[in-house]
Amino acid sequence: MSRSPLAPATFPDLPVIDGVRFASVEAGVRYSGRADVMLVEIAPGSSIAGVFTRSATRAAPVIDCEAKVGLSGSGGAAFLVNSGNANAFTGESGTEAVKALTSAVADHLGIEEARVFTASTGVIGEKLPHDRILSRLKSLSETLAPDGIAGAAQAIMTTDTYPKGAGREIRVNGETVRIAGIAKGSGMIAPDMATMLVYIFTDAAIGQDALQAMTRAHCDLTFNCITVDSDTSTSDTLLVAATGASGIDVSESVAFSQALREVMLDLAHQVVRDGEGATKFIEVQVTGAATDADARRVARAVADSPLVKTAVAGADPNWGRIVMAVGKSGAEADRDRLRIQLGDILVAENGWVAQSYAEEAGAAYMQQDEIVIAIDLGLAGGMATMWTCDLTKRYIEINADYRS
Amino acid sequence: MSRSPLAPATFPDLPVIDGVRFASVEAGVRYSGRADVMLVEIAPGSSIAGVFTRSATRAAPVIDCEAKVGLSGSGGAAFLVNSGNANAFTGESGTEAVKALTSAVADHLGIEEARVFTASTGVIGEKLPHDRILSRLKSLSETLAPDGIAGAAQAIMTTDTYPKGAGREIRVNGETVRIAGIAKGSGMIAPDMATMLVYIFTDAAIGQDALQAMTRAHCDLTFNCITVDSDTSTSDTLLVAATGASGIDVSESVAFSQALREVMLDLAHQVVRDGEGATKFIEVQVTGAATDADARRVARAVADSPLVKTAVAGADPNWGRIVMAVGKSGAEADRDRLRIQLGDILVAENGWVAQSYAEEAGAAYMQQDEIVIAIDLGLAGGMATMWTCDLTKRYIEINADYRS
Repeated sequence: MSRSPLAPATFPDLPVIDGVRFASVEAGVRYSGRADVMLVEIAPGSSIAGVFTRSATRAAPVIDCEAKVGLSGSGGAAFLVNSGNANAFTGESGTEAVKALTSAVADHLGIEEARVFTASTGVIGEKLPHDRILSRLKSLSETLAPDGIAGAAQAIMTTDTYPKGAGREIRVNGETVRIAGIAKGSGMIAPDMATMLVYIFTDAAIGQDALQAMTRAHCDLTFNCITVDSDTSTSDTLLVAATGASGIDVSESVAFSQALREVMLDLAHQVVRDGEGATKFIEVQVTGAATDADARRVARAVADSPLVKTAVAGADPNWGRIVMAVGKSGAEADRDRLRIQLGDILVAENGWVAQSYAEEAGAAYMQQDEIVIAIDLGLAGGMATMWTCDLTKRYIEINADYRS
Repeated sequence: MSRSPLAPATFPDLPVIDGVRFASVEAGVRYSGRADVMLVEIAPGSSIAGVFTRSATRAAPVIDCEAKVGLSGSGGAAFLVNSGNANAFTGESGTEAVKALTSAVADHLGIEEARVFTASTGVIGEKLPHDRILSRLKSLSETLAPDGIAGAAQAIMTTDTYPKGAGREIRVNGETVRIAGIAKGSGMIAPDMATMLVYIFTDAAIGQDALQAMTRAHCDLTFNCITVDSDTSTSDTLLVAATGASGIDVSESVAFSQALREVMLDLAHQVVRDGEGATKFIEVQVTGAATDADARRVARAVADSPLVKTAVAGADPNWGRIVMAVGKSGAEADRDRLRIQLGDILVAENGWVAQSYAEEAGAAYMQQDEIVIAIDLGLAGGMATMWTCDLTKRYIEINADYRS
């Protein structure tokens, strides 16, 4: 599949995180000729935070991870992830596969099973051929290396057209702290939560509870604010591991929290930029709502609207469809106080098209790759921002013609 | 635009309703070479019931109709409808246009302005050129005829590929009562409510309050149970006029209520069959939910899911996506009690694919034009049915390439 036109030029040069080693391998779970399993080993004493899909039909590995992430263990930990098969809606056999994999990883790496977190992504409802993964565990554990993160980002891809990575190096109390993260996701992307798989690593020192609180707060404003097709995956998993190897305590560091959020937002945007069939990146900014929750409702109604998304695909400044989406959102709105902008261009105000608006200016703006739709409801201070992509024929092709 | 492959062979032969006369004309509101305005005159003493969009940005004519439908007048009444321009988000000028039109119709037909109901459908945000309609009112009122309903059904079309009509003749207390209805709608179709414009006429005798209650109840199970693209229109209007000319009181008639519902369901299905780009008609049946509201949530999540709808377009029995949609719906669900059927074919049960299921059987079933997705949640007695169509490249073409 050809690379998304919105993809970054190259995979970023991510910082090496002390205390984390990566390996990836071709196990033939479903795909052939490419790596499809990644193993990550994390040093003893690391804190691990996680956020998962709220789907009522979530996959077996998600249920297993949820139970484990609250436990504070101090031994080593591991992440094992395969692409090609979601191990979702696979009944008892799904649970058994997770058990077999976590137990084997624990044996190979000499860690507790309660510290092994798995994820599977791909087709729903087919039995995971976990023996294929088991047979590669020895090879995986023998090839673990600190610089293997780019290969790992490749191994977790499904319909993604490019691997996704983001990193930061920041100074905390005069010392350097590093963050590196990878993600996969392209379709079945909607809150909550909005991505399929995200793994972020840092050498910062931070306790389990503080890391979990920070991760959840940032997730609400990053991965939970993106939508490709309004469909929520059964496998969504975000895990953050802090090894503490830098020796820098970041529990109270605003700079660290900000950098972690930047990495999450960067990865979230990369998922949208790889949205199935995407040709335009859309930011929906809502201000002036009665509450933040109302702002979010409006932003999501616009970002999920097929009519808005097809208009953007056609480079049509069809602001009437934005009005429609505001109206259907269920949020408090007053037609006569609504202000709509496309980028810096004021399109509508006072219940009608703006006096200054020229259709040619709107049409020219819509030719861009990145579109900002700004909506001010004029009621109070509630605000929200969401990110999405356009809806094109290619989305239909990808999802009607292939079983993903 | 070529006729939908799901369209009925011909426009039905609708019964003539005593007390109702129709006219249509080409006014050039936006389209040329076709009728785009309909006028309906309704005899004095008729009851008129209505249900309207709940959009917060609903159009000027909708706001006007809402205010009027509660009033019980006994004089003659009229419906005036144009296509091509929705008169929505047009500020004060929109309200003034409605006032000018209702006042002029009242003068021409010698009725009260409070009994003139208008609707406009088409582009949002452009000023309605209502003078073009005013200039044709004389011609419209001079050509009113009892058998003009088929022409009226044509005049209210926008992106519709065929005119929509449905009728019934039933016996009540040994006498014949007639119902005839027309509808338009193709895109921007979602609850609540799910169609753009529907007009139903009957010669039955029934009071305003009883007709309104019956109309609202049936609307919830017909027009509010269809979705094409999850986008709610700003103009949705359903009006039912009962002239009483048959002299048959149907206030207590189960047969009449049933027939009215059948006409509404028939028209609702016709709207789905003309869904933009549709090639398959999909019925989503949900049973066994904790409550009816939960059943509706599940049905809507499945019916609105782009991944389910593209799978149907590709004739792919991708039941994993149905599991996903159930999971994201927010309704109470237990993976291990879920049962999913495609038509009569049991696909999944006990938290996994059914032992008896053969992919070939599912694939063969998906080749049909009409697909039933049946979901039993196995929890309690809540149920709901919704109707939708598949999502194809043609939907993208229609909405990305044309301003509708």
